Amino acid sequence: MIVLGIDPGTATTGYGVVATDGATTPTDRVAKAGSAGPRLIECGVIRTSPRAPLHERLRDIHEGVTELIARHHPDALAVEDVFYARNVRTTLVLGHARGVILLAGSVAGLAIHEYAPALIKKTVVGAGAATKQQVQFMVAKLLRLKHAPEPADAADGVACALTCVMYSEGPMARMRLAGAAAASPTLTAPRRTVRS
Amino acid sequence: MIVLGIDPGTATTGYGVVATDGATTPTDRVAKAGSAGPRLIECGVIRTSPRAPLHERLRDIHEGVTELIARHHPDALAVEDVFYARNVRTTLVLGHARGVILLAGSVAGLAIHEYAPALIKKTVVGAGAATKQQVQFMVAKLLRLKHAPEPADAADGVACALTCVMYSEGPMARMRLAGAAAASPTLTAPRRTVRS
Repeated sequence: MIVLGIDPGTATTGYGVVATDGATTPTDRVAKAGSAGPRLIECGVIRTSPRAPLHERLRDIHEGVTELIARHHPDALAVEDVFYARNVRTTLVLGHARGVILLAGSVAGLAIHEYAPALIKKTVVGAGAATKQQVQFMVAKLLRLKHAPEPADAADGVACALTCVMYSEGPMARMRLAGAAAASPTLTAPRRTVRS
Repeated sequence: MIVLGIDPGTATTGYGVVATDGATTPTDRVAKAGSAGPRLIECGVIRTSPRAPLHERLRDIHEGVTELIARHHPDALAVEDVFYARNVRTTLVLGHARGVILLAGSVAGLAIHEYAPALIKKTVVGAGAATKQQVQFMVAKLLRLKHAPEPADAADGVACALTCVMYSEGPMARMRLAGAAAASPTLTAPRRTVRS
């Protein structure tokens, strides 16, 4: 299974493409117990020009996502939900970006999943209020990367794809991944910083 | 000039296609003084299934707008802005619908205009706080229709297109249209009802 994860934004949309061996039944899990788990195929960001009018930025985002779908043929699209307790205008504009992203997935006939930011952090880091650095760190650990994805928006896209993978594979997969992350010595965990 | 006006909604998106002779210079205005003014080509609504997931509804709205553009070859797309003092969740979902509508116009290379609801009402009715019935009445008057467009969402789409036409043609056109409306005896104005 290949999942395209998206963290929507009008200026910067983060994305991550994650592949998994798709162990979904107990027998599969035994057979694939030695498999390496999910792996990262590609991650990055779609940037739009801050001076371009909204409709042009939406076109760039839509084209970017459509290109990613054409290149990787994902089975599912996982899109981060808007955290809508912020400024209403910001929330509204972000809704426009999510609209064209969901459209790209819908037109391509993908299974579409939406996850709240807190659920993604809870699933990947273990805490719903995790910092961006903690998400980057855990994404690198779970996917056995030498460096954390940069910028943080790209890591957020990967985290969204990972959440989809972990939920599709069930609680056993989430436990196994958590164990793998605990055993991985490649990175040092950043300290949790208190946000001002 | 042909303008496609849209009143976005996830359940019901109203639209109106308005054509004008495009008198934009003083000489034009004299030459076309006897012209009939803007005329309605088509109006209606794009309805989506309330039980369908959001991404399917967005696809239906996008397809509907794309079809209208293909059929009428408008020069401009006029989209009503979201009145975002309401429920934040509603505003966010409406942003998704606006996103796919703006995308359709952008991909087709149309000039894109956005108008606040109060400006549309002010332009078409003369009062920013006009009721839906007053908008329907004035749309019918300005376009010399026998009946007001139904449902009200369709009239809102037409009003948005009319606002674009009236702003493109300048203050003279707005005055001329207002005069034509005053002289038109075809409909009886609905009384302004106080909203609860």
